[in-house]
Amino acid sequence: MFDQNGQLPGEFELIAKYFAPLSEGYPGAFGLLDDAAIISPSAGHDLVAKTDAIVGGVHFHADDPADLVARKALRVNLSDLAGKGGIARAYMLDLILPETTTTAWLSAFASGLAADQRKYGVHLIGGDTNATPGPLTIAVMAFGEVPKGRMLRRNGARAGDLIFVTGTIGDAVLGLKALDGECPALKAEAAASLIERYRLPQPRVETGPLLLDVATATIDVSDGLIADLEHICEVSDVSAAIESKKVPLSPAARQALTDDPTLAASALTGGDDYEILFTAPANAANRIDQISQSSGTPITTIGRVEKTSRAIETRVTVLSPDGTPLKLSNKGWTHF
Amino acid sequence: MFDQNGQLPGEFELIAKYFAPLSEGYPGAFGLLDDAAIISPSAGHDLVAKTDAIVGGVHFHADDPADLVARKALRVNLSDLAGKGGIARAYMLDLILPETTTTAWLSAFASGLAADQRKYGVHLIGGDTNATPGPLTIAVMAFGEVPKGRMLRRNGARAGDLIFVTGTIGDAVLGLKALDGECPALKAEAAASLIERYRLPQPRVETGPLLLDVATATIDVSDGLIADLEHICEVSDVSAAIESKKVPLSPAARQALTDDPTLAASALTGGDDYEILFTAPANAANRIDQISQSSGTPITTIGRVEKTSRAIETRVTVLSPDGTPLKLSNKGWTHF
Repeated sequence: MFDQNGQLPGEFELIAKYFAPLSEGYPGAFGLLDDAAIISPSAGHDLVAKTDAIVGGVHFHADDPADLVARKALRVNLSDLAGKGGIARAYMLDLILPETTTTAWLSAFASGLAADQRKYGVHLIGGDTNATPGPLTIAVMAFGEVPKGRMLRRNGARAGDLIFVTGTIGDAVLGLKALDGECPALKAEAAASLIERYRLPQPRVETGPLLLDVATATIDVSDGLIADLEHICEVSDVSAAIESKKVPLSPAARQALTDDPTLAASALTGGDDYEILFTAPANAANRIDQISQSSGTPITTIGRVEKTSRAIETRVTVLSPDGTPLKLSNKGWTHF
Repeated sequence: MFDQNGQLPGEFELIAKYFAPLSEGYPGAFGLLDDAAIISPSAGHDLVAKTDAIVGGVHFHADDPADLVARKALRVNLSDLAGKGGIARAYMLDLILPETTTTAWLSAFASGLAADQRKYGVHLIGGDTNATPGPLTIAVMAFGEVPKGRMLRRNGARAGDLIFVTGTIGDAVLGLKALDGECPALKAEAAASLIERYRLPQPRVETGPLLLDVATATIDVSDGLIADLEHICEVSDVSAAIESKKVPLSPAARQALTDDPTLAASALTGGDDYEILFTAPANAANRIDQISQSSGTPITTIGRVEKTSRAIETRVTVLSPDGTPLKLSNKGWTHF
């Protein structure tokens, strides 16, 4: 696509130089020298497939470092696979590049992918590069595998189940606000750690597959804790109550919320957390403690699943420390 | 992504209204109500995966009808699967929409997909919708299956093999030229048939899977007949000679080339043909006749594979009717 532009080498050179090396070690990728890839799950397994695209200026800042953009594009997909109990194996990449793209940018982009391939044990097996007059756009399709018929679903939450979440909530959205200058009181170190969470999701790949025998419903938190819990409630036909004080916050997020308590609403609704939100029977709490320890990932109980006859948008209740429901307003969470 | 724009319903309504119906009948799509899809090849088969993206203003005109844009986005991927001998089963879709997108456009887009799903027996199993300040961008990942270990490759062409191509070559690029007013002498009916070929590829899904037992190397013609034959030559480490007069042209293309003989070069190099170019042993000619008849698709012998020690860019020779090699210049094909 870039043959006439001068900025970049032709498409085939570009693939050979930057992307073919990322396919090494995966026979079905055929060195990116054919028209399609072969991918087949191991015996007794299903293939889990997911695609998510990110757009410059929408999902990341146009001047974010190229290696972090690459890793984010990959990781948001790995997060979905992990949330479904899958072990990631491979991915394909559609890279839609502005004409101003330089070889230095591409080189950094590819090195970001290479680093994450080593970290997560995945390979690039195919893709497409194109030019655009618009912003950098990256679509990734990720493939993982789960034991046959066992993919974790959104639809199994039952009244009485407890609600759990991995890691901490709100860091990414607060990081974005810090990046945009909306957290002026925040100390530099705290701001940096939040910005890091925004730029570089940490998909819970160790935890997700361990939930196969215990979780009744799962989702990765990308739309926001409340919205993603609503998704579970909708498909499972249940309601949910979470206790605001139990939602796990990082020290940096806690500092940001102390500086400006109205940010609490953003933390619960902002999204881009890439944690796993799941439900499990109350008697599974001990096993979940073990999973937390063996995967090295904090897991916190934040609430309980309830029976419902309510409209979808009112199925998630956020409770204050005194047990009364809070309401989301433009001032943040307030009492009804 | 569109919740705040007013133009379109929210992302979830949009998926529920326009896209979830396209997943009906494919259990592993979970009605597009989960985070990932399950896809597994039939027993004894490999999964073939391919992704191709198209960008408004680059691969299609921004005002092309929405249903045709949808079908083109899908079909360019189905063409690759067919070229590899695969039978298409499912696809995922990343839809990156300008903020001016209307519900009427989306409705037409979805109806184009629905029509092609019926035609090709595929289902939508997942995807992502996003907003962009740039042009409409569509990434499709298509999945098919082939008997295990049997995917047709680019790398098996051998000296002495004949070179074949399905259908006709050059229509799409001439259609684009007609659309851009570059074929003023062309009759309206001929122009319309060429434009149709540009807007709506006809992937050779009936022919591809029948080539599994006979073709030594295959590729679908998207970059252009010469470039794609070079790809086969590169990976197979052979050269190729094609006879210019044997390259199959439609009556409309023939008329365009009679009006303006310099367009012959465009026909051979323009691309977007979505025919299958393949090599096969000379003694397979009868079987290929049978495949042509049983798939209802013309297949033409256009040349021969040769031994090589040449540089890749000189591996494809185009021969004039008197057997002398032609050279591509800015006046079209000329004698050396």
